[in-house]
Amino acid sequence: MSKEIGITVKKTDNLSEWYTQLVTKAELADYAPMKGFMVLRPYGYSLWEKIRGYLDGKLKETNHSNAYFPLLIPESFLKKEADHFKGFTPQVFWVTHAGDTELAERLAVRPTSETIIYDAYSRWVRSWRDLPVLINVWNSVLRAEITATRPFIRTSEFLWQEGHTVHETKEDADHEVMMILEFYRQLSEEQLAIPVLMGYKSEREKFVGALYTTTLEAMMPDGKAVQMGTSHNLGQNFSKPFEIKYLGKDEGVHYAWTTSWGVSWRLISAMIMLHGDDKGLIIPPRIAPIQVVIVPILYKKTSEDAISSKAKSVSEQLKKSGCASHVDSRGQYTPGWKFNEWELKGVPLRIEIGPRDLEKHQVTLVRRDNAQKMTVADDNNLVTQVLNVLESIQANLITKAKAALSRSISNATEYGEFKRTLEERGGFIRAGWCGDSECEDAIKAESGATIRTIPFQAEETFEKCVRCSRPSGKTVYFAKSY
Amino acid sequence: MSKEIGITVKKTDNLSEWYTQLVTKAELADYAPMKGFMVLRPYGYSLWEKIRGYLDGKLKETNHSNAYFPLLIPESFLKKEADHFKGFTPQVFWVTHAGDTELAERLAVRPTSETIIYDAYSRWVRSWRDLPVLINVWNSVLRAEITATRPFIRTSEFLWQEGHTVHETKEDADHEVMMILEFYRQLSEEQLAIPVLMGYKSEREKFVGALYTTTLEAMMPDGKAVQMGTSHNLGQNFSKPFEIKYLGKDEGVHYAWTTSWGVSWRLISAMIMLHGDDKGLIIPPRIAPIQVVIVPILYKKTSEDAISSKAKSVSEQLKKSGCASHVDSRGQYTPGWKFNEWELKGVPLRIEIGPRDLEKHQVTLVRRDNAQKMTVADDNNLVTQVLNVLESIQANLITKAKAALSRSISNATEYGEFKRTLEERGGFIRAGWCGDSECEDAIKAESGATIRTIPFQAEETFEKCVRCSRPSGKTVYFAKSY
Repeated sequence: MSKEIGITVKKTDNLSEWYTQLVTKAELADYAPMKGFMVLRPYGYSLWEKIRGYLDGKLKETNHSNAYFPLLIPESFLKKEADHFKGFTPQVFWVTHAGDTELAERLAVRPTSETIIYDAYSRWVRSWRDLPVLINVWNSVLRAEITATRPFIRTSEFLWQEGHTVHETKEDADHEVMMILEFYRQLSEEQLAIPVLMGYKSEREKFVGALYTTTLEAMMPDGKAVQMGTSHNLGQNFSKPFEIKYLGKDEGVHYAWTTSWGVSWRLISAMIMLHGDDKGLIIPPRIAPIQVVIVPILYKKTSEDAISSKAKSVSEQLKKSGCASHVDSRGQYTPGWKFNEWELKGVPLRIEIGPRDLEKHQVTLVRRDNAQKMTVADDNNLVTQVLNVLESIQANLITKAKAALSRSISNATEYGEFKRTLEERGGFIRAGWCGDSECEDAIKAESGATIRTIPFQAEETFEKCVRCSRPSGKTVYFAKSY
Repeated sequence: MSKEIGITVKKTDNLSEWYTQLVTKAELADYAPMKGFMVLRPYGYSLWEKIRGYLDGKLKETNHSNAYFPLLIPESFLKKEADHFKGFTPQVFWVTHAGDTELAERLAVRPTSETIIYDAYSRWVRSWRDLPVLINVWNSVLRAEITATRPFIRTSEFLWQEGHTVHETKEDADHEVMMILEFYRQLSEEQLAIPVLMGYKSEREKFVGALYTTTLEAMMPDGKAVQMGTSHNLGQNFSKPFEIKYLGKDEGVHYAWTTSWGVSWRLISAMIMLHGDDKGLIIPPRIAPIQVVIVPILYKKTSEDAISSKAKSVSEQLKKSGCASHVDSRGQYTPGWKFNEWELKGVPLRIEIGPRDLEKHQVTLVRRDNAQKMTVADDNNLVTQVLNVLESIQANLITKAKAALSRSISNATEYGEFKRTLEERGGFIRAGWCGDSECEDAIKAESGATIRTIPFQAEETFEKCVRCSRPSGKTVYFAKSY
């Protein structure tokens, strides 16, 4: 009954194949029978629950509430904001029948919920007293993917959260957009240990229907960027067609300002690619569903009970301190097999307890991030030491990731150099841009790179646009992306 | 800017209209623009989060994990279990296009996930070592409702959880079915304060494709039953067409046994109807998103600061003890307006703090369930006293509800009496039944009542079937239902 659980390809040799094997072998996800869809398995879902729990806490602390809006949206709603409709309609799954009855109007399976939510807001918002409306939704959205799909990265259905808020003024909406972006940064950098570049999207890359879009961009080991989340100020672009108006303190009637923002299970794909190694996942401790796995080493019959009960008591102590620990007491597998499996699954710290450990009143810790092995005394300080090691793993992961992000950034002043760098090493290329969408389109067509982000603060001035050599208004970050 | 927030009809005069007003005015839910759909507003969602949190905890304690499966299911999958397909297909929303492309095969928007989940299980289950599989999903399902719809009771989309487990033997599956039913009973009786009758469904009423279905049934004030949840042993009815087989300890290959079980947001409808009164909702304390609302009474300018800070400090003390308290410090509303609003929203306990309370080092408590008012000293015992009052409210609600359930049960030995009782007072009618589906169908056609449940233990013997007078095999509970 031995299962083939190891990954048969090296990360540096073939990131794509390594990724696919890892996702399925670590039992994070499985392919569904319909092209483009995936199943999120329990271990993957528990990771999503950690992400959701963290962000949900931040949102509730700042007076956001969750709600639920219908899955099916009338076609006429999507059409109310013309750009929005044009942007999403090629990917919409359309419901045409209920049972045997053809529907009078087609219903879209939600590709995003702006339109159905704004219809409700137009009824709920009457006065400045009703503002702000701060609502978030945890749901799934569907966007048909015609091209190749990959678990967590590009699927026809994905889990996400979508926040939709209504404000009195542009300033209030701006503030919301930036506060949410900061929550996303904390989630990404402080929990998932993934450093990001932040800034605006260009007009071409912004959310269809938005006034402006802000983004967080991470860099993967193959030199391609992953968009980690976006936060949009929608201006009055939706409040006007949907008639979201309020009576102001000035007794006048005003169109409200709205924002929307979201992160999806794609965060998980970046975590896998950035931290994983040839043995499997490496999950940052703060976001790990299992932070510590305890493997009892039972090869002397006489000490089995003592070791098993020691393993349980260490686990209980850790749980009391809020540490998610798990004892792997399965009889049908050897310790070595278990080590491999938990390394594959990326548990940050392993504790081994064998007869020798028991004798010496110690336990053996093995770090997942650097394979470092250490023995620590089994005394009152054990829990503190374990917690310290977990924090040290977290710190190590973000430090390494930050260094990799820095290394990935190149400057380019000439178009030849730009294309060469992109081809040879990928990563972010910092360059001047004239601000013209046509130039941006041409760069994409000629090199495959898009403007990932325009920094909030001008970092350094490039005099000329990297492609057309006209004066550069902005320094921007280009990259190929997932 | 005064809002009309009160309910304009008495519960006893028109339960249906009272219910609809209450759901919308208490801001639990709103109608969606598409017939049959509703929006779950933040206050309603927070109730659902409490229900979900409680049940999710129970499931995780017993080694169940959450996962996520695709929303869209190929038609051919639904057809694999013939009865299942026949049962659901009239209500299925069908996706026929992705963008402009017509799909080769129609996809069903999930009406329930057995088929898509079992397809995955057939790949995941190989050996007895892989069993049991204990997976739960929190999602929404869609079943087109042609007849009148009512929020939380009958909607074309609803939030629920669906559990899907795989076991080695019928006994293991039986045990799972009954354990889950017991969790549902605890949720219903101990959290929502809704007493239930439990037992089997008849062949006619069981889940399409099940070996047998167990159910929990509650009685509403208008004499109609609400099905609170169901837990099914699916036998090998799904494992055979979906090829869920395992290599047993005996080295033989066996079809597995599966179960499924679910509760939905319908639980909320029963809570509303059972406990609410003419002033609004009454939410049982254990499940209340806000358990205590503190209203500062600010009519002397001089004491405003002192009262506000007292309100905050009481709230903080309560929160530290795990009590969900909220200070209503809104300036634009009078205390009387706030009292009405929080009564409408069913917050179990109100604390008033006014200048007189401050002076006397006391606070005033007002119970939502019986309007009882009491002053308690603002000392070290305050938190304990508040918690005791909350438990007393919880106890009062379940005691009253149990008495109402008992009163609602009548016996009937003759068909005339049966129909008269059903017509005049409704409720559960305990009667003999021959066991014949034709008789069951006739009773439904002639009286509108169905067999809600067949008790697990025979309670009392009726000699004859209430309709056909043939010998009665079983004592069953009939009722009209939602």
